[in-house]
Amino acid sequence: MKYADSGVNIDAATKALARSKKSIRSTWDDRVKNEMGAFGGLFQAAPGEPLLVASVDGVGTKVMIARMAGRYNTVGQDLVNHCVDDILVQGAEPLFFLDYFATSKLEDDVLPDIIEGFAIGCRENGAALLGGETAEMPGVYSAGEFDLAGTIVGRVREEDVIDGSRIAAGDKVWGLPSTGLHTNGYSLARAVLFDKAGYTVNDTPDELGGTSVGDALLAVHRSYLNPVRAMWAEFGRDAIRGLCHITGGGFYDNIPRVIPDGLCVNVDPTAWTPLPIFSLIGARGGVANSEMYRVFNMGIGLVVIAPAGIDLGRIEGAGAVLIGEVSAGDDKVKLPF
Amino acid sequence: MKYADSGVNIDAATKALARSKKSIRSTWDDRVKNEMGAFGGLFQAAPGEPLLVASVDGVGTKVMIARMAGRYNTVGQDLVNHCVDDILVQGAEPLFFLDYFATSKLEDDVLPDIIEGFAIGCRENGAALLGGETAEMPGVYSAGEFDLAGTIVGRVREEDVIDGSRIAAGDKVWGLPSTGLHTNGYSLARAVLFDKAGYTVNDTPDELGGTSVGDALLAVHRSYLNPVRAMWAEFGRDAIRGLCHITGGGFYDNIPRVIPDGLCVNVDPTAWTPLPIFSLIGARGGVANSEMYRVFNMGIGLVVIAPAGIDLGRIEGAGAVLIGEVSAGDDKVKLPF
Repeated sequence: MKYADSGVNIDAATKALARSKKSIRSTWDDRVKNEMGAFGGLFQAAPGEPLLVASVDGVGTKVMIARMAGRYNTVGQDLVNHCVDDILVQGAEPLFFLDYFATSKLEDDVLPDIIEGFAIGCRENGAALLGGETAEMPGVYSAGEFDLAGTIVGRVREEDVIDGSRIAAGDKVWGLPSTGLHTNGYSLARAVLFDKAGYTVNDTPDELGGTSVGDALLAVHRSYLNPVRAMWAEFGRDAIRGLCHITGGGFYDNIPRVIPDGLCVNVDPTAWTPLPIFSLIGARGGVANSEMYRVFNMGIGLVVIAPAGIDLGRIEGAGAVLIGEVSAGDDKVKLPF
Repeated sequence: MKYADSGVNIDAATKALARSKKSIRSTWDDRVKNEMGAFGGLFQAAPGEPLLVASVDGVGTKVMIARMAGRYNTVGQDLVNHCVDDILVQGAEPLFFLDYFATSKLEDDVLPDIIEGFAIGCRENGAALLGGETAEMPGVYSAGEFDLAGTIVGRVREEDVIDGSRIAAGDKVWGLPSTGLHTNGYSLARAVLFDKAGYTVNDTPDELGGTSVGDALLAVHRSYLNPVRAMWAEFGRDAIRGLCHITGGGFYDNIPRVIPDGLCVNVDPTAWTPLPIFSLIGARGGVANSEMYRVFNMGIGLVVIAPAGIDLGRIEGAGAVLIGEVSAGDDKVKLPF
C-alpha cells in the first residue's frame, strides 16, 4: 500500500501551496525572518528585539483513533507537543498556545477532556493556554467526528536562531526516539490496521508485545523541549547546529528543510530499531521501506546535528542515538532505499 | 425559530467551558494579564514589555455558504478581519496571522482561493501571513466540506490596554455598522433562508433590494482597525474607554464582557436600521427580537464607549451612530426586549 491509497494526496497539497507562495509573500515585510517552508514563522516586531516564532498544526486523523478508543485527553497533549517541537527546531521556547476545537455536535464529556489534554501539554511545556475557540458545525463534520487545530507562539534571541546554516560536512547526526506515530501518517495506519488487517483498537497483536493497537496509536507525541534544553546547558547553544522535527513527509521531506545546499545527511536506518507499531504497519500493509520512511518517523522524532566530538548520548533521558553523518553532496538526505 | 432549533447549542459549549476553567487557569502564571472570557488573551513575556494579544477563531458555517456559492476567496478575509477585531477591542494592533484549513478532499482550485482570501485580509490589516497548515481528512469532514481556523497575534503597550475599567455612568455608546452577519449565526440563517423559506444562494428576494441571498450572506466581515485608529488619532487613546466586538452571542453576551460591575449599557435599537438580511431572517423565520439580538449583530459590528462630548460621528468613513448610554445598574446590558 501507499499513502495515496488511503485517500491522502500529499502532492495535491504541495502543488496548491506552490501556487499560493506569491500570495503569502505579498503579506511579508522585513519583519518576517524565515524562508517559505520553515517549521515555524520567525517575526521580529522591531529591530534588536527577540524573534517571535509561531506555528500552527493539527493532529490529522489521530482524532479518529481517539474517538474509536473513547479517550479524549491525549490528543490535546499531542498537539501542544507537536507545536512545541515545531518551534524548538528553530531555537525557540514556548510562551503560549491557542486551540481550536470543532465538531458535528458538542457532547458533554468530550470537550472538557480535550481541553484537559491541552492543559496538560501546556503545563508540561511551561506554555500558557491563552485562548481557544469551540465550534459546533453540524453538516461540516461527519456525525460524531471532531477536529483540532493549535497555534503556538514562542521566542528566541536573534543570535540563538537555529537555521541550519552552521551545519558542515563531518557533523554527526543524532536521532531522539519518538513514542509512536506522533501526529503523522494516521490515514495510512488506519487503512492498513483497521481496513486491511481487520484489527480493532482493543486487539493486541503479538508484534506489539502486549500493547493494544489503540494504545500504540494513541501514544502521546513527545516534546523534545527538555532534552534539547539539557543539550544546550551541557554543550552550549553553538553545539546544536541543526534540529529537525520528523513530521509529515518523514525523513525524505523534513531533513532537507534544514540542510544547506551542497550538503547531504546520510541516515543509517540500521542504527536503531523501529518501534513495533511501524513494523506491524509495514508488514500488514506490504508498505515499501521507501514509503514507510516518507510517511512515518519510524521511531525517530527529532534529528539533531552537532559537530563531531559532541557526545549527545551523554544527555540523560534524551535517548540520543548516532544515526548518520553529514557529507558534501547534492541530495540533502540519503537513505539506502 | 430559535438558534437551538438549527442544531447549535450555545449553552452546551458554555457549560463545557465552565467545567474547564480550572484546567485552563492551571496553565497560567503572572505573565497572563487577562481574565477568563476576554476577547483576546494578554501575555506579557517580561515585566515592562508591550503585551502580546492573541485570539483564535473560525467563521462557523459561513464556510458552507462559500461552498454553495462556489466562492472561496472571501472567507479567509472574514477570518482575518474577525481576529483583528477581537484583539483591537483590547487596544492591540496586529502583527501576524496563522491559518488552518482542513477538508475531506483537497480540490485544486479551492485552497489557492482560500489562501488568497487570507492574504488579502492580512495585507489590508498590515499583518504577515506567517504560517499555515493544510489537512486532508476524509471521514472527519463530510464530502466536499471544509473548515478554517485562524490565530492572530498583535501587541499593545501596557498603558494602552483597553479593559473597560475606565467606563463610567454617563458615557456615550456608539455603534459602527457591520456589513452583514460577519461570522456568526449562520446555522440559524441557513435553517431559515434555505430549509424553511426555500431560497437558494442565487435568489434575490425583494427585501434584499437586488442583492442575492448568497451575496448578502458572504459580505466580508468588516475590520474596524482603521476607524479605531482614526478615533485614537483624533481624540487620543484615553477617549476610547471601551470597545466591544459584537460576535457570537450578539448584544446580550458580548457587551457584558467589557462592562464593569455596577454599570449598564442601555441600547436603543431604534437608533439604527438593521440591515435587510436581518429583517429577512427575522420575518421568514418568525424569530423573536430577543433571539435575533442574542444571535446576530443586527447591523452593528463594533460598540465604542466614549465620554460625553466626544463626537465619534465626526470620524469620516467610520459611520459611528449613537446607540445608547451607560448608566448605573446591575444588568450590564439592556435592550427593550
